[in-house]
Amino acid sequence: MGNQFLNIMNPEDAEKIISTLPFKKRVEKLTIKNAYQRVLSENIYAPINLPPFKRAAMDGYALKAEDTFKASEDKPTSLKLLEVVMAGEVPQNKVEEGTCIEVSTGAPIPDGADAVIMIEFAEKNDENILILESVASGANIADEGSDVKKGDLLLTEGEFLTPDKIGVLSAIGHPKIPVYVQPQVAVISTGNEIIKLNEKLDYGKIYDINSYTIYNAVKSCGCQPIHSEIVKDDFEILKNKIIEFKDADIIITSGGTSAGAGDVLRLVLDEMGEVLVHGIAVKPGKPTIVGLIKDENEDQIIFGLPGYPVSALMIFYVFVAPFLRKISSLNDIDGGNNTIKLELSRRFRPARGRKQYVLVKIQENKAHPILKDSGAITSLAEADGYFEVPKNVEILDEGSTVTVVPLYYFK
Amino acid sequence: MGNQFLNIMNPEDAEKIISTLPFKKRVEKLTIKNAYQRVLSENIYAPINLPPFKRAAMDGYALKAEDTFKASEDKPTSLKLLEVVMAGEVPQNKVEEGTCIEVSTGAPIPDGADAVIMIEFAEKNDENILILESVASGANIADEGSDVKKGDLLLTEGEFLTPDKIGVLSAIGHPKIPVYVQPQVAVISTGNEIIKLNEKLDYGKIYDINSYTIYNAVKSCGCQPIHSEIVKDDFEILKNKIIEFKDADIIITSGGTSAGAGDVLRLVLDEMGEVLVHGIAVKPGKPTIVGLIKDENEDQIIFGLPGYPVSALMIFYVFVAPFLRKISSLNDIDGGNNTIKLELSRRFRPARGRKQYVLVKIQENKAHPILKDSGAITSLAEADGYFEVPKNVEILDEGSTVTVVPLYYFK
Repeated sequence: MGNQFLNIMNPEDAEKIISTLPFKKRVEKLTIKNAYQRVLSENIYAPINLPPFKRAAMDGYALKAEDTFKASEDKPTSLKLLEVVMAGEVPQNKVEEGTCIEVSTGAPIPDGADAVIMIEFAEKNDENILILESVASGANIADEGSDVKKGDLLLTEGEFLTPDKIGVLSAIGHPKIPVYVQPQVAVISTGNEIIKLNEKLDYGKIYDINSYTIYNAVKSCGCQPIHSEIVKDDFEILKNKIIEFKDADIIITSGGTSAGAGDVLRLVLDEMGEVLVHGIAVKPGKPTIVGLIKDENEDQIIFGLPGYPVSALMIFYVFVAPFLRKISSLNDIDGGNNTIKLELSRRFRPARGRKQYVLVKIQENKAHPILKDSGAITSLAEADGYFEVPKNVEILDEGSTVTVVPLYYFK
Repeated sequence: MGNQFLNIMNPEDAEKIISTLPFKKRVEKLTIKNAYQRVLSENIYAPINLPPFKRAAMDGYALKAEDTFKASEDKPTSLKLLEVVMAGEVPQNKVEEGTCIEVSTGAPIPDGADAVIMIEFAEKNDENILILESVASGANIADEGSDVKKGDLLLTEGEFLTPDKIGVLSAIGHPKIPVYVQPQVAVISTGNEIIKLNEKLDYGKIYDINSYTIYNAVKSCGCQPIHSEIVKDDFEILKNKIIEFKDADIIITSGGTSAGAGDVLRLVLDEMGEVLVHGIAVKPGKPTIVGLIKDENEDQIIFGLPGYPVSALMIFYVFVAPFLRKISSLNDIDGGNNTIKLELSRRFRPARGRKQYVLVKIQENKAHPILKDSGAITSLAEADGYFEVPKNVEILDEGSTVTVVPLYYFK
């Protein structure tokens, strides 16, 4: 009847083993259009001042503030207009006493000018401009480097690239952005009963669910999933598929890890690498494998999830996602999960002998346990979170406080 | 000096006009791998039962529960093993009194059996299985349709496709998923002073920021951005660029909308369509345009944002994003923005005469205003949110309560 689990492990020990799995972050350079929601791999220092030159902050007239000190609507001061400078143009003249230069927002401030009067407070009169209000020195001018000085630290390694940070990188003309490579994760459904979504559903067969749920959950952890075709419960086929994905950082399989017939992954790992965890004392998801595929350069990490969709995704949420979010840097960015303490809506009798993860719907500030078996994919779609029940608890009364881990990363 | 604003509008009126802009949602069918984080465009009913057949929920022996009623470790009951049925296989025999069939998790339950005893509570003895414990009728069996019945409503129009919902669709063998098309948004930076990120920064020029910030902010609103090359402040060039993007649902430009020189978009719209908003009484971002490009089939929506990066992104956040999130259905899904009431960390003197949006950093549960001008791109990268100050407020004292709109959609 195949192997029994060699050594059912406490979930805390399994978590410890997973948290110390080896992973080397790699870096790549991306165009700025592709860098959205990626993680910066270097500190970025400003190579230039921002603004890069002294410029007009408003449409108006660049002038000497002194010339306007007596100006008013009743007694406007007349200044000779020398030229018009639009944004992107270079002034040809210097502003002297009694003169001005028209500037648009963003245009360079001509030499000699120390203020810009807004267009609303001036009037054109042939070659001259009537100034209707006094203006202070420095008004409506943005000095070179007033936002950022050359050499300033702008963004730091590990920052998540949001639109505004993309803006900071654009401002300094940074066409290629150094970011961490998203870990590549191959996702394989195994099982003789599993068929493709467009196949005819013969008796005894079920459609492939896990490769799609896990594929997308991998994405939500900041990693790049690679989708595999379905693999039969066959030693050679699974082994060859694992070899095919040898360039992936991580392989996640589902199915074929239970103690019953068809425990192929375990046998493949015995030949190609090392089993670190085989069986975790949790419900659902006991038949879980964690292992390494040996490689002369860098060992490859493999997670074998249970075949049942709810078990597979629960084990992914609890054990695999924290690891993926760590190596993709997402955990550092959002600080990981915040739990919520909630009242239980009804009495709950946990499974005996194993730590249990109980899916809940959150309604009216209460945790409502979802009481379906782990074959029921709809239970996950309804769930807002889960709570853990230690293995020796016999009963949780209605109204007890439970600590719910929300599933919002995956929602 | 170009056009003055024709009719500076209250922000509330501008919001009303934007909220009633015409937009027809379109639908498409995607493979399940590509449907992640898309919005379902139809109700989905189950075409089959789930599980699709009566199956074993555990590895064990399918048998008649009656046969086990006297079984114990001391006095095991011996049953004849007829065959082994793995998941994906079809049983060849019927379970009769005194017999059993080995089944793996997910295997069909053979006719005649009404329970499965877990492998841990049985022992092999040649052709026979020794049953060490009694088991109740129905134990470890998942009935056909126990999770989902054929015809059940599984998912409803408007749902956001998370990994678990993708799982529900996979379970029913739904290879093509009906979703709403993501609105296509062309993003154009305009201005003679704007250069590409890999160009040499000559005096008076600045790097293109807006097309990259807006491009990514569009993505965060559930829309599909299209990036344009930079467009000079020239009537014909801008007009031709707008024609080039005639298949986009929406065009967003930045720059060239102020009352000063270079007000090209306004002139193009006067020829090609209709200006609905020209100038909004807000700070930053007064020179904002909203218009329609006329088309015999469907008018195209155009937003003209100010040129300054902070103004452009603020106007995007306040006026454009709610519209994009509405037409991409995201607002229906997450309920839109939640505001937070916070104490102001210092005295703040708003601009006169216009409603003002003030960026803030949130620290120690206080709102710290970011006091930089709208040319300063770093102010946005530091901001966690913003609050609004009505136009007639003269001063906000330290400790006043402000209502902060968080920017987490864009972070």
